[in-house]
Amino acid sequence: MTIRLYDLVGSDPSRPFSPHCWKVRMALAHKGLGFEAVPVRFTEVAGVEGGGGRTVPVIRDGDTVVQDSFAIAEYLDDAYLDRPPLFEGASGRALARFVESWSQRTLHPAIVKATILEIHAFQDEENRAFFRASRERTFGKPLEEVQDGRTEEKRAATSKALEPLRATLRRQPFLAGDGPMFADYIVFGAFQWMRCVSTFSFLEGDDPIQDWLDRCLDLHGGIGRALPAAA
Amino acid sequence: MTIRLYDLVGSDPSRPFSPHCWKVRMALAHKGLGFEAVPVRFTEVAGVEGGGGRTVPVIRDGDTVVQDSFAIAEYLDDAYLDRPPLFEGASGRALARFVESWSQRTLHPAIVKATILEIHAFQDEENRAFFRASRERTFGKPLEEVQDGRTEEKRAATSKALEPLRATLRRQPFLAGDGPMFADYIVFGAFQWMRCVSTFSFLEGDDPIQDWLDRCLDLHGGIGRALPAAA
Repeated sequence: MTIRLYDLVGSDPSRPFSPHCWKVRMALAHKGLGFEAVPVRFTEVAGVEGGGGRTVPVIRDGDTVVQDSFAIAEYLDDAYLDRPPLFEGASGRALARFVESWSQRTLHPAIVKATILEIHAFQDEENRAFFRASRERTFGKPLEEVQDGRTEEKRAATSKALEPLRATLRRQPFLAGDGPMFADYIVFGAFQWMRCVSTFSFLEGDDPIQDWLDRCLDLHGGIGRALPAAA
Repeated sequence: MTIRLYDLVGSDPSRPFSPHCWKVRMALAHKGLGFEAVPVRFTEVAGVEGGGGRTVPVIRDGDTVVQDSFAIAEYLDDAYLDRPPLFEGASGRALARFVESWSQRTLHPAIVKATILEIHAFQDEENRAFFRASRERTFGKPLEEVQDGRTEEKRAATSKALEPLRATLRRQPFLAGDGPMFADYIVFGAFQWMRCVSTFSFLEGDDPIQDWLDRCLDLHGGIGRALPAAA
């Protein structure tokens, strides 16, 4: 049976934009597993698979339902041992957790501050209201004041904060070495999210991170690149 | 034959302080390999093993000489396959490179800025002159102006920059998971360097990073803790 992926979209159901759902899309493709994507808007998340969950991605694989991108990647590796691994051993999972913590604390806040108005505009009318209310509650200020990341000074500061990633990718083609593993998809998900909603970039043309991003977009038949960038 | 480790010291030959040498000390202990430490001061580094190298650690293992902490760890894993591994697979090495890049770009500059006068004072007279000249050339200003990291604001900023490490260690006892691997020793080396030369800390008492640091100090018969902290 085909795996079902509940996948966050905005007003256009053909444009999945969630960083965490993109991690799972890449993980499924990496393992060569076909999947059916079920587009879900923010306001529909609570109803996924009988309800109760607060976030997507969620997958259903036969009788098994798994929520959370990292848990899904672990499930896929455990359930499909004969397919290409997403992690190498227990320490591979543990070190990928460090990559996840780094990405969520370095890259995600920078992306939110640089593009939150575009993420808002990406939603349909009902979800714009939902998104604004929920994020303004989180940040305690209007979205227009959250988005502050477009000065050259802020772009350069974020670019500098990405130096650990850049230095690693100067040495090796992927975070996981010669080929990609889930650690790569964790960081790729964030950049793909940004690519989907905004034309803005933290990177300059000759950045090794950009070269890696291009390699990621080409992986698995180019499923990343098949999503057109924001224009 | 016992492995020889050329190990950076200051005025006291019994107090090795280099972060990179501590990575190798922990790696050797992890693999259960005895070693003889040869204390080397900054001005003696160029004469190690016939000369030509610019840095320690260097190890000699029989006829093999290896320089650079990461290269030494890789050598030890390749040469002593029957001993506990420092890396799990090729992706384990690649992901440890990301940890290394993060540590060198986040933690090392913060330690230098917070403690460079103490690192200077830690050396004997000849090496104080050497250290001051070389570092003032690097930074383009007096050591007294490089050290600027002791305000509460700067301490808090560094502590915040350590959040990816902290979040990971809230989830699992070591960076590599249930037990330590070289990725842990990479970051431990930096903290041990700071512990050796200074009483200053970026961490508050209840920090999960401090708990992990205490676990690291207890590893392998407590070789880390056997070095008294600066007083």
